[in-house]
Amino acid sequence: MESDLIRAEILAIGDELLIGQTINTNAAWLGEQLNAIGIRIGRSVVISDQRQEIVSALNEASGRAQIIIMTGGLGPTKDDITKHTLCEYFNTELQINEEALARITEFFSRRGLPMLETNRMQAALPASCEVIHNHRGTACGMWFERNGSIYISMPGVPFEMHGMMEDEVFPKLAQFFKRPVIRHRTVLTTGVGESFLADQLKEWEHMLEARNIALAYLPSPGQVKLRMSSYSEAGRDVQADFAECEQELHRLVGEHIYGYDKDTLQSVVGHMLRDDKATLSVAESCTGGTLSRFITSVPGSSDYFQGGVIAYQNEIKERILGVSPSLIETYHVMSEQVAIAMAHGARTAFHSTWAIATTGVAGPGGGTETHPVGQICIAVAGPNGAVAATLRLGKRRENNMDMAAQAGLNLLRKEILKQKADF
Amino acid sequence: MESDLIRAEILAIGDELLIGQTINTNAAWLGEQLNAIGIRIGRSVVISDQRQEIVSALNEASGRAQIIIMTGGLGPTKDDITKHTLCEYFNTELQINEEALARITEFFSRRGLPMLETNRMQAALPASCEVIHNHRGTACGMWFERNGSIYISMPGVPFEMHGMMEDEVFPKLAQFFKRPVIRHRTVLTTGVGESFLADQLKEWEHMLEARNIALAYLPSPGQVKLRMSSYSEAGRDVQADFAECEQELHRLVGEHIYGYDKDTLQSVVGHMLRDDKATLSVAESCTGGTLSRFITSVPGSSDYFQGGVIAYQNEIKERILGVSPSLIETYHVMSEQVAIAMAHGARTAFHSTWAIATTGVAGPGGGTETHPVGQICIAVAGPNGAVAATLRLGKRRENNMDMAAQAGLNLLRKEILKQKADF
Repeated sequence: MESDLIRAEILAIGDELLIGQTINTNAAWLGEQLNAIGIRIGRSVVISDQRQEIVSALNEASGRAQIIIMTGGLGPTKDDITKHTLCEYFNTELQINEEALARITEFFSRRGLPMLETNRMQAALPASCEVIHNHRGTACGMWFERNGSIYISMPGVPFEMHGMMEDEVFPKLAQFFKRPVIRHRTVLTTGVGESFLADQLKEWEHMLEARNIALAYLPSPGQVKLRMSSYSEAGRDVQADFAECEQELHRLVGEHIYGYDKDTLQSVVGHMLRDDKATLSVAESCTGGTLSRFITSVPGSSDYFQGGVIAYQNEIKERILGVSPSLIETYHVMSEQVAIAMAHGARTAFHSTWAIATTGVAGPGGGTETHPVGQICIAVAGPNGAVAATLRLGKRRENNMDMAAQAGLNLLRKEILKQKADF
Repeated sequence: MESDLIRAEILAIGDELLIGQTINTNAAWLGEQLNAIGIRIGRSVVISDQRQEIVSALNEASGRAQIIIMTGGLGPTKDDITKHTLCEYFNTELQINEEALARITEFFSRRGLPMLETNRMQAALPASCEVIHNHRGTACGMWFERNGSIYISMPGVPFEMHGMMEDEVFPKLAQFFKRPVIRHRTVLTTGVGESFLADQLKEWEHMLEARNIALAYLPSPGQVKLRMSSYSEAGRDVQADFAECEQELHRLVGEHIYGYDKDTLQSVVGHMLRDDKATLSVAESCTGGTLSRFITSVPGSSDYFQGGVIAYQNEIKERILGVSPSLIETYHVMSEQVAIAMAHGARTAFHSTWAIATTGVAGPGGGTETHPVGQICIAVAGPNGAVAATLRLGKRRENNMDMAAQAGLNLLRKEILKQKADF
């Protein structure tokens, strides 16, 4: 089925990518998104902000691909030359686009900022392109067609590019190329490794193959996503196929599954809390705010999140969370006992139904023989008491903070489920 | 000046990079490292694990570059075909390399793992290459020379690739090519837009040009980095050039400059606090833990960070931070007055020298006419009282949280500087 696929190539323009100052996350995001709508990335290229490089890369790509997506080089400054080079390449010239100018003017006036000539010039766009408007910034995108191929130029700022692709470009591409419909269903797991899952799911993969469903393991720190993809076939009920496969997957590894598709651990936990009219607070030591940030990244989380304490010193654990100094002395501040006391303390201070606590060594320094870097205790306190667990993670500080915060959310998820089962 | 430079190209091989499952951090790392030794990355390409793609990409790159570095496709599994393709490309064949075999055998015996035939075959390497040994894994690297160009093949696992490049490849390259040195200096600004900066720095750019220094504006949310690059010329003191240009830059936009090169706002503020033996706490409402996470992402931040309160409900602001209900009623909970009261409250609760507070509407919902989405108040309290500011940001929740946290850190930075100036 691959041969049917439209080939796209990505052309990222920017010296900052070549010298390693910026990592090209745009290419990965575009690869994932285009793949999901049945467009295959054949090649992904990074070049510098130089006219000759851009022209020769465009010439090469146009011989191989039906879709060429450029990112970067659309800023207001002198080193951004993509727009001028595209004018030359498509034999057209810049003209002020009135809608773009109106948007840019509004962008600055809304923020109470002065608008300069360089900003106004961002509304000057190649006459022969279709303008793709940017609701999140001032650099417009461009859509050119030539000999049945599509050339798209996007700003390099990921947040702006994502919005423009989702709002305008993906729908336009789907309309332009008649794509077979691909359906995806992603099952989200946490707390289990990729190779362990792959081993448990050998038989299950045969079940997918029989239904012409492709499977991808998508690992990220602390999680593995299982993406099932099905190309529509006449006479097949794809949703029924997915449902059957999911049911079997639940039988095999159900305890590790926390959600589907665009869910996150924090959104899933948020739904559970809201459904129960329950509330949550946190007491964070080594995660240093990460857990709170995860929870509050969900819009509307103030419905159930009361708040938390970042207790980065023993004295704060004692004074604000009421952890007894003798408990710390007896068990060490990085112990499950202290994590549990912190969770109880948060629950009391914030009058919440549930509380999560973390304590440990995030690293890279500060480890000892008994409490090495990456050893982190998490605890959850709730209506029926508290539970705790000890994680043994790696040496990378921010990774450890993220993994521990996720593990805390997952422990809460399991406790809420257990409470429901007990009823 | 660019023409003197050796041109390298990177060829990353792997479907997982094209479909966005893995982000190509190897290219960024190689770009940074090679640039530092005077080798310019002219292009960076990602292709799939297919013989034809590898051959055609090699052909194209060899017409442009003196150094071609391949990463990936050297694993023991069937889909890893780089080694076979290179045999074909360089018209040679695989033979067992005895030193590699001994290393692989030792690798498995040290870990008490069984060694399979697929592992043994990793010691089969092209007869015409120079083998680059891997002290951290089982896949060897390869070094080929043809017509004065170098072709290097490396495993894709970053940790293994880094070690092999540092131990063997960089020294060999430095010996093979006699390199001019490239020097970079990056000046970091915050709280000011790219176009505003560019407008202020028009004249200054001429000053750089006269010294043969290239300039790049590198924007990211809330920040703009100014990167100066200079290729060493006989008789020029590049450091003196940089110093002169930096001095003028400070005169023009000094208030927006917070650091250099690898600094971050949180690391700069951390250094200032440590130097002063001062401490910090936070009271976060709408940033929901983001500010704490930023501060604690710096290793060793427990030296100065006391902790904080995430006050996601009015009741918490009142009870734990001691904000008076009448103040909230009079000025609204999202006001500079309340932000200042929160900062004072955190300073008192945590006994810290300084405190930062945030309150506002992160969005996307919850805005009103008087308190729209993106309107966020930040405050800093310190030994000499408190200051506050109101930000007017966009509609995207997580972006607003990040920008407000950065603005809070920057406000603290300015207050610490002001305090020093007052002495």
